[in-house]
Amino acid sequence: MRFVRYGEAGAEKPGVLDGDGRLRDLSGEVADIAGDVLTALPQVDPATLPEVPGAPRLGPPVGRVGKLIGIGLNYSDHAAEAGLTPPPEPIVFMKATSSIIGPNDPVYLPRGSEKSDWEVELGVVIGRPAKYVTEAEALDHVAGYTIVNDVSERHLQTERKGQWTKGKSCDSFGPIGPWLVTPDETGDPQTLDLVLDLNGKPAQRGNTASMVFSAAFIISYLSQMMTLHPGDVIATGTPPGVGMGMKPPRFLREGDVMSLAISGLGTQRQEVRRDA
Amino acid sequence: MRFVRYGEAGAEKPGVLDGDGRLRDLSGEVADIAGDVLTALPQVDPATLPEVPGAPRLGPPVGRVGKLIGIGLNYSDHAAEAGLTPPPEPIVFMKATSSIIGPNDPVYLPRGSEKSDWEVELGVVIGRPAKYVTEAEALDHVAGYTIVNDVSERHLQTERKGQWTKGKSCDSFGPIGPWLVTPDETGDPQTLDLVLDLNGKPAQRGNTASMVFSAAFIISYLSQMMTLHPGDVIATGTPPGVGMGMKPPRFLREGDVMSLAISGLGTQRQEVRRDA
Repeated sequence: MRFVRYGEAGAEKPGVLDGDGRLRDLSGEVADIAGDVLTALPQVDPATLPEVPGAPRLGPPVGRVGKLIGIGLNYSDHAAEAGLTPPPEPIVFMKATSSIIGPNDPVYLPRGSEKSDWEVELGVVIGRPAKYVTEAEALDHVAGYTIVNDVSERHLQTERKGQWTKGKSCDSFGPIGPWLVTPDETGDPQTLDLVLDLNGKPAQRGNTASMVFSAAFIISYLSQMMTLHPGDVIATGTPPGVGMGMKPPRFLREGDVMSLAISGLGTQRQEVRRDA
Repeated sequence: MRFVRYGEAGAEKPGVLDGDGRLRDLSGEVADIAGDVLTALPQVDPATLPEVPGAPRLGPPVGRVGKLIGIGLNYSDHAAEAGLTPPPEPIVFMKATSSIIGPNDPVYLPRGSEKSDWEVELGVVIGRPAKYVTEAEALDHVAGYTIVNDVSERHLQTERKGQWTKGKSCDSFGPIGPWLVTPDETGDPQTLDLVLDLNGKPAQRGNTASMVFSAAFIISYLSQMMTLHPGDVIATGTPPGVGMGMKPPRFLREGDVMSLAISGLGTQRQEVRRDA
């Protein structure tokens, strides 16, 4: 099943795509795709639901995200591009949940930003609470998968004192979606192609098979420290091709268009604007 | 005014203390002390509200915290204790909101933890959205102040690859409360004494006058990167006396009791337990 949330930002309604990719209204079944609903997503034949007319805006496919956790340098080829060796265990950081936007909403560069960058990533959405789970159990706690663009301001991330949080948490730096795809449709999460084009030209190319730490490992690892709750989202790291790694570096400018895709998870498209 | 949330974890009701410190039920006025309610906290004479019998558990005095932001090394005397020079600009990190507990709930050491530590901090609760605000405007965006114990696992924070997030985000590592005290009662937030005792003996002693960056500066600084929303909480750093700084270091053990106080903001008390 491919679940979505559609409508105005902050007032999204739950929906689901039918076999022909048409949007169906799920609000008769659940109030939102969020919280405990993720533990037992509705099993309903989309064809029996009312069709939604027009082409409404899509929001992030999961509401009330509690934690938006990022994993750093999780593709061996991206680590090489950044001039770093893959870490011996996952690098964990947090993006502010206030950075979350819909998959096709504009991305705004903060005032003064000259080094904002893109990162296509497989997003894991937690469906059942996970604490001290083993790697073998981990994927039983997943509600589904989605695309995350882990937009990052490199100057704030690495050239200003301290932690990565500053460069990862700017408003609009967390596009999520378009769909929450259930694991039965995704199949093995370590076999997915990832693509990011900038202005129609290839930038990032990768496959989740190159992840240093698998989705299952990451869930188990994080769950040794903190409970993962339904609606938490983990951005599992990015393959090569970010602007920072280009020679010379190429960062986001007003008017740029980022297009992202992951096998079976749909596409994102963001125009870049600048905060006034 | 001193606002509280009382009752079972996850089902707290809003309350307010009257002039004699008695708990009054505020649930006839607002559903919760959270979100937009923080923008315009109820102006009501507590004496007119029903008294709450008994001594219910206190929860965190703000619900649905969106971001729990920490500031590192923000007391010049604590930086010295950690063997570090004060940073040229604020060090910003994020604690998982799933770490938040009530002010007197037990703190659980995660499995295997040998280096968990305490940090009494002034907590700033945002009341009005703040984006690109100046230092002079910043305090207009504050709903009130509270105490945060920024419990930190030093091994996870600094000896495992990467960012501080791991050691800051464990379940129960974010006691907040007991009260949300409005700014008219607190007065100048840079004049408050902070105290943390371990098993009844002095550990931390400080005053917010020693903060490297004031609450107003921090709010303005963060707001250049991200919108601060009502219900966001900023833990503004800790004064000297943490376990990591003792010679030899003294970390938390099962059965320890932490007692915290800040001028006008009440007290916290946590027993330390260990995850099974």
